[in-house]
Amino acid sequence: MNPVKVAVNGYGVIGKRVADAVRMQDDMALVGVADVINDYRIRTAVLLGIPVFAATPDSASSLRNAGTPVAGDLDEMLEQADIVVDCTPKKVASGNKQRYEAAGVKAIFQGGESHALTGHSFVAQSNYASAIGRDCTRVVSCNTTSILRTLGALKNAGLLKRARGTLIRRASDPWEGHQEGIMNTVVPETSIPSHQGPDARTVDPDLDVVTIAVKASHNSSHLHTWWVEMTREATREDVLAAFRAAPRIARIRAGDGIAALNSTIELMADLGRPRGDMWEVALWEDVLTVDGNQLYYCYQVFNQAIVIPETVDAIRALSGIERDAAQSIAKTDRALGMVSDFLDAPQRGGAV
Amino acid sequence: MNPVKVAVNGYGVIGKRVADAVRMQDDMALVGVADVINDYRIRTAVLLGIPVFAATPDSASSLRNAGTPVAGDLDEMLEQADIVVDCTPKKVASGNKQRYEAAGVKAIFQGGESHALTGHSFVAQSNYASAIGRDCTRVVSCNTTSILRTLGALKNAGLLKRARGTLIRRASDPWEGHQEGIMNTVVPETSIPSHQGPDARTVDPDLDVVTIAVKASHNSSHLHTWWVEMTREATREDVLAAFRAAPRIARIRAGDGIAALNSTIELMADLGRPRGDMWEVALWEDVLTVDGNQLYYCYQVFNQAIVIPETVDAIRALSGIERDAAQSIAKTDRALGMVSDFLDAPQRGGAV
Amino acid sequence: MNPVKVAVNGYGVIGKRVADAVRMQDDMALVGVADVINDYRIRTAVLLGIPVFAATPDSASSLRNAGTPVAGDLDEMLEQADIVVDCTPKKVASGNKQRYEAAGVKAIFQGGESHALTGHSFVAQSNYASAIGRDCTRVVSCNTTSILRTLGALKNAGLLKRARGTLIRRASDPWEGHQEGIMNTVVPETSIPSHQGPDARTVDPDLDVVTIAVKASHNSSHLHTWWVEMTREATREDVLAAFRAAPRIARIRAGDGIAALNSTIELMADLGRPRGDMWEVALWEDVLTVDGNQLYYCYQVFNQAIVIPETVDAIRALSGIERDAAQSIAKTDRALGMVSDFLDAPQRGGAV
Amino acid sequence: MNPVKVAVNGYGVIGKRVADAVRMQDDMALVGVADVINDYRIRTAVLLGIPVFAATPDSASSLRNAGTPVAGDLDEMLEQADIVVDCTPKKVASGNKQRYEAAGVKAIFQGGESHALTGHSFVAQSNYASAIGRDCTRVVSCNTTSILRTLGALKNAGLLKRARGTLIRRASDPWEGHQEGIMNTVVPETSIPSHQGPDARTVDPDLDVVTIAVKASHNSSHLHTWWVEMTREATREDVLAAFRAAPRIARIRAGDGIAALNSTIELMADLGRPRGDMWEVALWEDVLTVDGNQLYYCYQVFNQAIVIPETVDAIRALSGIERDAAQSIAKTDRALGMVSDFLDAPQRGGAV
Repeated sequence: MNPVKVAVNGYGVIGKRVADAVRMQDDMALVGVADVINDYRIRTAVLLGIPVFAATPDSASSLRNAGTPVAGDLDEMLEQADIVVDCTPKKVASGNKQRYEAAGVKAIFQGGESHALTGHSFVAQSNYASAIGRDCTRVVSCNTTSILRTLGALKNAGLLKRARGTLIRRASDPWEGHQEGIMNTVVPETSIPSHQGPDARTVDPDLDVVTIAVKASHNSSHLHTWWVEMTREATREDVLAAFRAAPRIARIRAGDGIAALNSTIELMADLGRPRGDMWEVALWEDVLTVDGNQLYYCYQVFNQAIVIPETVDAIRALSGIERDAAQSIAKTDRALGMVSDFLDAPQRGGAV
Repeated sequence: MNPVKVAVNGYGVIGKRVADAVRMQDDMALVGVADVINDYRIRTAVLLGIPVFAATPDSASSLRNAGTPVAGDLDEMLEQADIVVDCTPKKVASGNKQRYEAAGVKAIFQGGESHALTGHSFVAQSNYASAIGRDCTRVVSCNTTSILRTLGALKNAGLLKRARGTLIRRASDPWEGHQEGIMNTVVPETSIPSHQGPDARTVDPDLDVVTIAVKASHNSSHLHTWWVEMTREATREDVLAAFRAAPRIARIRAGDGIAALNSTIELMADLGRPRGDMWEVALWEDVLTVDGNQLYYCYQVFNQAIVIPETVDAIRALSGIERDAAQSIAKTDRALGMVSDFLDAPQRGGAV
Repeated sequence: MNPVKVAVNGYGVIGKRVADAVRMQDDMALVGVADVINDYRIRTAVLLGIPVFAATPDSASSLRNAGTPVAGDLDEMLEQADIVVDCTPKKVASGNKQRYEAAGVKAIFQGGESHALTGHSFVAQSNYASAIGRDCTRVVSCNTTSILRTLGALKNAGLLKRARGTLIRRASDPWEGHQEGIMNTVVPETSIPSHQGPDARTVDPDLDVVTIAVKASHNSSHLHTWWVEMTREATREDVLAAFRAAPRIARIRAGDGIAALNSTIELMADLGRPRGDMWEVALWEDVLTVDGNQLYYCYQVFNQAIVIPETVDAIRALSGIERDAAQSIAKTDRALGMVSDFLDAPQRGGAV
Repeated sequence: MNPVKVAVNGYGVIGKRVADAVRMQDDMALVGVADVINDYRIRTAVLLGIPVFAATPDSASSLRNAGTPVAGDLDEMLEQADIVVDCTPKKVASGNKQRYEAAGVKAIFQGGESHALTGHSFVAQSNYASAIGRDCTRVVSCNTTSILRTLGALKNAGLLKRARGTLIRRASDPWEGHQEGIMNTVVPETSIPSHQGPDARTVDPDLDVVTIAVKASHNSSHLHTWWVEMTREATREDVLAAFRAAPRIARIRAGDGIAALNSTIELMADLGRPRGDMWEVALWEDVLTVDGNQLYYCYQVFNQAIVIPETVDAIRALSGIERDAAQSIAKTDRALGMVSDFLDAPQRGGAV
């Protein structure tokens, strides 16, 4: 089977990781990436050997003036592609949809866009089948993805009644820390519920989930604290088994010295992960507490990378090259080197 | 009636505020403060005209060497006092109890100590009466005090069934920021429930409350997010009325530009509060959400000052100079200039 | 003599402090403050009993809708004033000049404006006399003010040959920490010299001073490190004597536990300073090092308040109510309670 | 020639990078790493296939209890080695020297140790020859290494007269951010000169260099600002040529969007650098300013990795497998993929 030809529009935090991940799949080929920027960020794509397309005429000339080889314009990139992953900023993305349709390429949007844009929102383990052959879908945002992975695990085990979470969000991404950020404060979102609960229901309408979100003075990743009312009294082991049975949740332990958000960041670097990325939800196994039908736990969401595996799966679903969710998930996870326990399991395919 | 003679042992974050507050009450007199330190912190007490006692012989000589006048030793301070407020660090405080007993002075300990030390834990609006005439009590910690104020308000209104909270704690106090702190991370407590729920039950055993605590990368104050299951469906107005009826909760609004923890810090300075202190729980009125019998809200705890009014009340309760909780609370709050709404109400006694 | 009638246009970080300081002078009267905002910030002025004027028709109606009493519009404020202190944001301020001229009020601008706007830049100890009777002047910015105070002291002692400084700036002001800031980084200014050296020469053209500026991940105040080549070999005592002889430099000592920027913040609160303000340059006496004709030192600039005394002096100079610089400086410093050593000297007028 | 057998004692920030780097050299073989820890940090070494030795009997049993395979004790590791790189904490390292001597292995210590411990301090480009065949040396610390690279470049070009620098240090390393750090402050070192100037003279006694150091509220890396008096008037191009001619200085440009410390961190990740490491001094080419014989510039020191290439060279020098400094430097830099310009030059050996 010919590899699916994938184009990435927008070479930012998500786009560059999608490009990396596509290049790691044996059933996909990266056509190139497009952007409007002209600085060090896009120039690293050139150094990595990725064809760079100019998303606008202006950017084409400024790229060329900077000595950056330009492979063509956005339309030329789309011509070569079967599917485009749109990783442009919020207000830009929705405006691109018609252009993708006109070019006859399927499109994947990111979680910053509204469900209405695509009429379909995607989390591989929840609703892969419903995306097969569609023209477009939306991979939900980092926090929502983590909610569907974890509450999905509890639901599949028949344990989930309702869930209430507090999301302690990072204030900005590291690369933009010199211009965007907050200082020595915590900022509560003014609306409760925050958007993640309703957003999760665009994928699984049955979830009884409410979230409160705040922004804290760090920039590495998110931390969630959860209270779950279970359908019945259960043991810690019941709950851990439910999480173990689900994909893309990796257990960590404070007892191993993984004491905080910064610990896993160091751990990913130690494990040689590209860009230090953690695609898994990192769930503190030894913090998780069960009291009758009450369950409490917290986990970390590495917002820059967590949706990458779902995006790879979405490419398979839309293109139809793989019709089985579990097969696609397994293939993606193997290619990226994902694990269910960072310390106990062998880390990467044949690498060790 | 003669004023109660109050000594303060430990001139740190809490001790210096207790000393300030005692000096603002017309039924109390400050005997002095004792400490083991010798640097700028205790020397400001001298500049404020407060008698400084040396808690140890070593500190006496080092204070004198630094040219700081020493009013006497700890025993001499206790001799002059009816009651001592112990604000020494955790491991020191419990060791002082016998000494206070031997000196025949009543003693108030802070929330870092165990309930077992005193056999009585104190929050004015919850159990003032049970402290009257006692030899000692413990004013519970900042977070626990806030829980009893807020859940107490809901309980008094007949609305409280159970409560689950996430406490986003400050990592250190501002004065120690150059040597203690965390950087660019969030640190979850490894035990769920964190100690504040059980601690609240030392004051009110009926509360069904569980908390999860994390430490975030800021140093100004704590932020709590709460989910409360109410005894019945209620309206926002029902809930707000319950909070309005309780003392020491001040409403703030994101719509007034009070958007985060740092906003109230600025507000306190703008209002001319001494040390910029906020003794009230600051509850975001326009973030609070009711959905049937489900209640969600968040508030700020200014940890350096919130227990000061309770400490003042505890002095009245132990000494017996005021036997009515409401009278003591009103007297304290008037003396400090506490309000129930920072912007709508006149701010300080006759000041405006 | 009738007090000078002072209006403040712009009730932000500087404006509110100017208003406070004017109210503390016995030869000045505050007409009121004007702004375009409508939130908690301006509403605290009302609580403090300050007449609030609406800087624009829009803000007048929004203030009134919020129940805030409005004393009039900007023109009405100017009509009542002899002099206006413009504390509006950068791009707004220069546009106001004509309006002040038309209203026949003298005007003081802040350091964000260009020297060209007024043709005169002001630091009391450097050039008070040249401002007497002028229609307008510009009080230079916080960092430049500190440079003129300290290098001026060395120059007056005949010790200054040339000076090279690195300015480690705060990233934002505390009140705006929830929306503006940087995270876990240091940002160098892209131009060397940074503007403060040339700016200092608008007040004293003889200074040989070059600065490099960076922005660091804190929001409380600035820290400067300096290398000075002196005109001759000198002793530490020579240099300290030069600094002691100059106004508005207060000595601090790491040996007293004042170890970092946050220490003086705590110290100001301990001393009961309004808003915790430090108007003095805080110079680490025991860090200062002399090696032959080479001098090294570092000091702290509390950017929110340091220019307030100079602004008060500028009011006296422009209005002509005091023609002697030293008299005005002494009067201002006494009214505010400024000191030359936070710990050794009595702190406030008759307060201790 | 047989590869040099290298052991690493201490698997922390430096130790793990030394182990990585040794494995990337074709003339070296890694015997293994030893440590006393038992948590996630050492367990990643196992996952990477590195033999783990227990530095103490206690750690051996706790490692085995945790299921971690132990290759032997410290003496057994030393037995297999020609040379050991000591990366243990400050107070531990000096105590190990005798043990290494007894085992007959050559030893390299890190910059936290005193020059007196080894009697020789090492920077490859400064004094490689003098280390050849020695039993031990000390690779100087991150900041000192950067000083010798940059001032060495100016000295070699005949431009250096004297240099005065301000070092804005990171407060802690990222992995320890949850327990060590500072908050919202800047902490000046109480001694001027800070130790880096004198330390640089242990390698090159001729340097006229004085540094002032402060600690700021970030944890990624250091930033230096420099004023240099040159021997003569020179042009920007003269200075840039001097820096280009020296190894291990990579030019960056604010004009490329590399605006702050966090920008290069992102850039290293984008370039696929292992652990996101930057071994080069990153010097802002377009911030550098020349004014007659005055030179101003600033650069970034990635403290976790900058001494790794020098450590690799020190292994070659001590073992004597390479007697030419330039050859060793070139070999190391090629193996690691170091560059002199992150954007203009091909990034890694044959990788692109």
